[in-house]
Amino acid sequence: MKLYHMPAAPNPRRVRFFLAEKGLQVPMEEVDIPSGANLAPAFLAINPRGVLPTLQLDDGTVIDESVAICRYIEGLHPEPNLMGRDPLECATIEMWQRRMEFDGMLGIAAAFRNSAPAFAERANPGTAPRAAQIPELAARGLEQARHWMAQLDRRLQESPYVAGARFTIADITAFVCVEFAKWVRVRATEEQRALAGWHARIASRPAASA
Amino acid sequence: MKLYHMPAAPNPRRVRFFLAEKGLQVPMEEVDIPSGANLAPAFLAINPRGVLPTLQLDDGTVIDESVAICRYIEGLHPEPNLMGRDPLECATIEMWQRRMEFDGMLGIAAAFRNSAPAFAERANPGTAPRAAQIPELAARGLEQARHWMAQLDRRLQESPYVAGARFTIADITAFVCVEFAKWVRVRATEEQRALAGWHARIASRPAASA
Repeated sequence: MKLYHMPAAPNPRRVRFFLAEKGLQVPMEEVDIPSGANLAPAFLAINPRGVLPTLQLDDGTVIDESVAICRYIEGLHPEPNLMGRDPLECATIEMWQRRMEFDGMLGIAAAFRNSAPAFAERANPGTAPRAAQIPELAARGLEQARHWMAQLDRRLQESPYVAGARFTIADITAFVCVEFAKWVRVRATEEQRALAGWHARIASRPAASA
Repeated sequence: MKLYHMPAAPNPRRVRFFLAEKGLQVPMEEVDIPSGANLAPAFLAINPRGVLPTLQLDDGTVIDESVAICRYIEGLHPEPNLMGRDPLECATIEMWQRRMEFDGMLGIAAAFRNSAPAFAERANPGTAPRAAQIPELAARGLEQARHWMAQLDRRLQESPYVAGARFTIADITAFVCVEFAKWVRVRATEEQRALAGWHARIASRPAASA
């Protein structure tokens, strides 16, 4: 298999972090999103949707969507478990993972894609319709990101990890979102100590720099 | 367990459809989103995030996020299988399910929440920050919805169901999105015959009206 990714982009980072936690090394190929390489014919022939990360299996089968790729890896390499062992744990982890995406990632991405010069006419990802940036949406995204960070700090005051007592994919998504938020200059406040402590613990994992 | 839902809203409908495919009946309680009942203290005491659907277990545990609720149900009641049996099938179904959400649902929801009078100051869902509507975002959402529908028609020209040869959760999400799109007056065009044929097949399933 081969992972098409971009080193700096948040979604590929989620999958690299996940693979590294599993102790796996997968051949990788870089595709540069800001210059539009993900929308060039060479990459669209691999994934017509034009998004990263994209995992290509040896028979040519393509899987995109970070969490779908992670679930495939989890199925092939169940240990260490990152997505749950029984129905309630699986659902709880998925709930928190999705909360990080919908409450965190979407707001940060809205802020970024609607303000970064490189995406001036490409506020939508991949081959979705070209779209002009909407400054009000960037502002709304910043507010969502700050709200999400406050909620995450509250969660981490009562739970050592995002989904509960142990490290899971929900921590990976949350950590990558916190890092991504720096791109739009949203950072934890000094009062958000639970978030800061958790962030330091996650950052110290060797896989966090994958 | 008890499912908090709203009959007309798209996300609760996904879970009701899923439960009905499993042949399950779960006690339900209605919460009205347009009037703000999801943000009233009574419901926030159950789920501080203020979103529907919310599943509450008998011990008080709460699961939100439609797909997390479905995964819990799938774990407890594996048949008929709707989310995959082996790593590749699970990943493929999840990929298509998420494509329907990110390429379809998000655009439709953006169009709706940024134009419907009931959500004039509540363009964000649940307890996310109150936000004024952004007309340009409603317009962008409509364009995304139309693009997604064209992509879905293309997919259904080559595959009988969204994720492949059989009915899965990806069809549920896609079907509910097609129905939701009517709220913003986006409908399949006459040329989109594969989509129309698939839609008629899905609509004929008894669970589709759950």
